[in-house]
Amino acid sequence: MTIKQLFAAAALSALVAAPTLADDLVPLSDETVEVAKMLRDKALESDEAYDLLASLTTKVGARLAASPKEVEAQAWGVEEFTRLGFDKVWKEPVMVPKWTRILERAEVVGNYAQPLVITALGKSVGTPEGGVTAEIVHFATFDDLKAADPAMVKDKIVFISNRMERFKTGAGYGPAVKARGAGASEAARKGAKAILIRSIGTDTHRLPHTGGVTYDEDAPKIAAAALSNPDADQLVRMLGYSDSISVHLNIQTTMEDPVEMYNVVGEITGRVKPDEYVVLGSHLDSWDLGTGAVDDGAGVAITMAAANLIQDLTKERPYRSIRVVLFSAEELGLIGARQYAEAHEKKGDMANHMIGAESDFGAGPVWALASNVSENAVHVVDKMAALMGPLGIVRADRKAGGGPDVGQLRAKGMPVMDLMQDGTDYFDLHHTADDTLDKVDPAALRQNVAAWVVFTYLAAEWPGSFR
Amino acid sequence: MTIKQLFAAAALSALVAAPTLADDLVPLSDETVEVAKMLRDKALESDEAYDLLASLTTKVGARLAASPKEVEAQAWGVEEFTRLGFDKVWKEPVMVPKWTRILERAEVVGNYAQPLVITALGKSVGTPEGGVTAEIVHFATFDDLKAADPAMVKDKIVFISNRMERFKTGAGYGPAVKARGAGASEAARKGAKAILIRSIGTDTHRLPHTGGVTYDEDAPKIAAAALSNPDADQLVRMLGYSDSISVHLNIQTTMEDPVEMYNVVGEITGRVKPDEYVVLGSHLDSWDLGTGAVDDGAGVAITMAAANLIQDLTKERPYRSIRVVLFSAEELGLIGARQYAEAHEKKGDMANHMIGAESDFGAGPVWALASNVSENAVHVVDKMAALMGPLGIVRADRKAGGGPDVGQLRAKGMPVMDLMQDGTDYFDLHHTADDTLDKVDPAALRQNVAAWVVFTYLAAEWPGSFR
Repeated sequence: MTIKQLFAAAALSALVAAPTLADDLVPLSDETVEVAKMLRDKALESDEAYDLLASLTTKVGARLAASPKEVEAQAWGVEEFTRLGFDKVWKEPVMVPKWTRILERAEVVGNYAQPLVITALGKSVGTPEGGVTAEIVHFATFDDLKAADPAMVKDKIVFISNRMERFKTGAGYGPAVKARGAGASEAARKGAKAILIRSIGTDTHRLPHTGGVTYDEDAPKIAAAALSNPDADQLVRMLGYSDSISVHLNIQTTMEDPVEMYNVVGEITGRVKPDEYVVLGSHLDSWDLGTGAVDDGAGVAITMAAANLIQDLTKERPYRSIRVVLFSAEELGLIGARQYAEAHEKKGDMANHMIGAESDFGAGPVWALASNVSENAVHVVDKMAALMGPLGIVRADRKAGGGPDVGQLRAKGMPVMDLMQDGTDYFDLHHTADDTLDKVDPAALRQNVAAWVVFTYLAAEWPGSFR
Repeated sequence: MTIKQLFAAAALSALVAAPTLADDLVPLSDETVEVAKMLRDKALESDEAYDLLASLTTKVGARLAASPKEVEAQAWGVEEFTRLGFDKVWKEPVMVPKWTRILERAEVVGNYAQPLVITALGKSVGTPEGGVTAEIVHFATFDDLKAADPAMVKDKIVFISNRMERFKTGAGYGPAVKARGAGASEAARKGAKAILIRSIGTDTHRLPHTGGVTYDEDAPKIAAAALSNPDADQLVRMLGYSDSISVHLNIQTTMEDPVEMYNVVGEITGRVKPDEYVVLGSHLDSWDLGTGAVDDGAGVAITMAAANLIQDLTKERPYRSIRVVLFSAEELGLIGARQYAEAHEKKGDMANHMIGAESDFGAGPVWALASNVSENAVHVVDKMAALMGPLGIVRADRKAGGGPDVGQLRAKGMPVMDLMQDGTDYFDLHHTADDTLDKVDPAALRQNVAAWVVFTYLAAEWPGSFR
C-alpha cells in the first residue's frame, strides 16, 4: 500500500467505524496502525526537534519565569507554532511572581579561608545586606536537622550534605530534595541564620543546582543556597580537619508582585471532534543558570515536532484535536499548569481533555510506557506499546502519573500516559548552568519524537474514550 | 630474605661495589632491585599521597602564584616536609609578578542577548573601565586570524573557536594553545579591541579554562578571555543565525611588581654522595579557579610521598640525595624553575643534579617511561622499566623532555626521565574551577607513587652517573 492509500483507508475506517459501534469498543483499524508506523519511521529521520531546540536555546537562552526572557520565549513559541502551520495558536494568561537573582557569594572565613561556589535556591530571600557570617552546623540529612536540638542550630548556618543517588528513573530525587524544599523553614524554626545544602544532583562539577525552596508560613524566611557538589565535599572534609568552620554568605534577590505571563498553545484541530483534546505538555520557562536545553527545551521541542510531523505527513487532520501546551512557570511551582487546570475547570471543558502526557525529563531515550486510562482503552495502549517496541520501549507495570504539569490536569480527571525517559544523566545537568544544547544527543531526541508520534497519533485517531 | 636482610645486603653491595669498578659500569645489585620491588609494592598499599593532596587542596585550596594563598601553600610545604621527617627543608627565593583577577563578565547584546560564561586569561590586562562592546569577528583557528585582512579585524572583538582534540598524551594541547598564548597580540596588531577564545580544553562544561596569555612587545595589550566550551559553541551557532553578533566584555585585573616567593625543597640526604641530587619536580602554585588538585597538587603529593616512602621503609639513606622541589609560579611562565636553574648555575652546582623527573600531568596512571640519559646508564632505565612493567607501564621509544619545570634544568645539562601519565581526561579539568580533589582516583595516585619509588630509589641508589 502506498502512503497515500494508507491515509485514505485510515480516514475511511474512522468515518465508517464511528457510527456503527459504541465509541470505546471500536478497534484500532489496521490502516491507523500503518500510518502510526510510517510516522514513527519518518520521525527517526527528522531533526526537526533538534532544530527547534537549537533555536530556542540559542536565540532565547535562559528564560526564567516572569523575566523578560520568558516573554521572549513565549513570542518564540507563538512564532514557531505559526511558522509550522498549526491550525490554531494562542496564549492563555498566567499570573507569575517575579523572582530575580542579583548576587550570590560564599566563602569560608578563618580556618581554611577560601571561596565556595554556590547558587541561591529559586525564590530564596536574600541575606541581610552585606551578608551573614556564622559557624556551620552540619547534618547528613534533612531528617537529622529535623531531629536536632534547636540549641545546636541557633545562630548558625545549617549545612545539609545529603548526596543524591543516581537512578535511571530519577528515584534518587525525591529523598534528596526534601533538604532543598523544606530545609530552610526547618532550619529557620530552630534559629538558623541561613541554610546551605549539597546540590540536589548527581554530577561532580563546580556547577551548583538551583531549584525552588518553599517557605512555611509559620517560620522566618532565611536565605537558602546550594553548594556545588565538589564544594559540599570540600566543606565536609574541612569539618574533618576542624570542628569550627565559618562561612560568610551574601545572597541578594528580589521578589516582585505577579505579572501576566502565558501558557502558549498550538493546536492541530480534529476533523471529527475538534473539541476533544489530546494534550502534549512541556514547559517553556527554565531556570536562569543554563539555557534550559534538557529542562525543558527538549520537551518543548519533542512535543512540537511530534504534533507537527503528524500534520505534515498525514493528509487529513486526526479524529480529535492535538493540543501542544507550553506551560509557563513550571519551575516556580507548576504555576502555568495549575492555572490552566483551574481556568478550564471553570470554563467547563476539562472533560474534553481526553488524554495527556508530558515530556519533562530531559533528552534521554524513552524506555518505558505507563498508562492510566479506562479499561476499554487498554487495547489502544497495548498497540502503542507494540509499535514502540522496535524503539527499545517496554510496557511499565505501573500507573502513569502524568508528570508535574500534566499531573495537574490528571488531578481534574484527565487520563494520562508516561513516556518514561532514561534519566540516568538528567540530574547531572538539572537546574545548572550546564544545561545546554551540547548535552543533547540528536539520535535520542529523534527516538523520543518517534515514540511521541505513536502515542499522539493513536490517541488522536482512535475514536473511543480514554476516560 | 627478610626486608631487614634486603636492606643490609643492598647497603653492603653499594659500599663494596663502588670502589672496585668505574662508577657507571657498576651493575645494579640484586638487593637494590629487591628493595625497589618492595617499595613499589608497599606504595600500592599507601594512601599517603592522597592524604597530602587532600590536605593541600582542602586547607589551602587555590594558590595563585604571588598571592597570599601561595604564601600559605609554601608554609604548608615546609610544614609537611618537616612533619614527614625530611633531612633538610628549605626555601629558595623567586621573584614573581603579582597578577590579580578582579572582574570578568561577558554578554551578547542586541540579537540573542544573553550572558556568556568566560574567564580572563592569566596575566590578561583589563578592558577599559566599564568594558568594551563590539561586533564579533570569528576565526576557526589562530592561523586564520594570522592570515586575515586587518580591515576585517579592526575595532572588533576577535573570536577564535578552535577545538582542542583529546589524546592520551595531551598532543591536542600544542596545536590549540596558540590561540591562547599568541592570539591577543596577533589580534591587537590588527586593531582588535579584545579577544575571546574557545577554552583550550576537552570538556563540555560551563567552566572556562584560564591559562597564560603572552603579550608581544610590539603589539598593544588587549584583554583576553576564554569562553566555556558550551558558550563558544553557542556563539558559533548564533553566527549561523545572524552575521552580526555583538558582545559586551568587561575584564578588570591588576598586575603588580614582582614579590618574593619561594621554591620549597625537601631533601633526603644521601649517605655516600650527599651533594649529588636526584630531582623530583612539581609545582606548588595553581591557577585561582580550582583547588589545583590535578594541576599540580597531584604532582606535589606523588613526589613527596615517593621520597617519603623511601626514607620510611629503607633503613639507610640512599647513596645520593633525593631532592623534592616544589616550584613556584609555574603557571605564570615556569618562573620558579627558571630561577632555580639560573641560581644553581651561578652557584656552580648544576652538575651535581644527577637526574630529574617531573610530575605535572594530573593524577592519571603512568603508562610509559621515557629517558634521556647517558649510554652507560641505559641498563638502569631498563631495570626501572622492568620493575614498572607489573604496574602497566611500557618503555616509550622517544627521548624524555623532563616536563615544563624540570625541562629548565635539562636545558642546563641534567639528564631527565618522563613517567608519562594517561592524560585522556586531564584537559577536561586543566585550569578550570573543576580541578578539585573529587576528580582524583586514589588507586591511580598509588600507582603513580609506585612508579616514582622505583625510578627514585634506583636513581638514588645506583652509584653510576646518568650524565
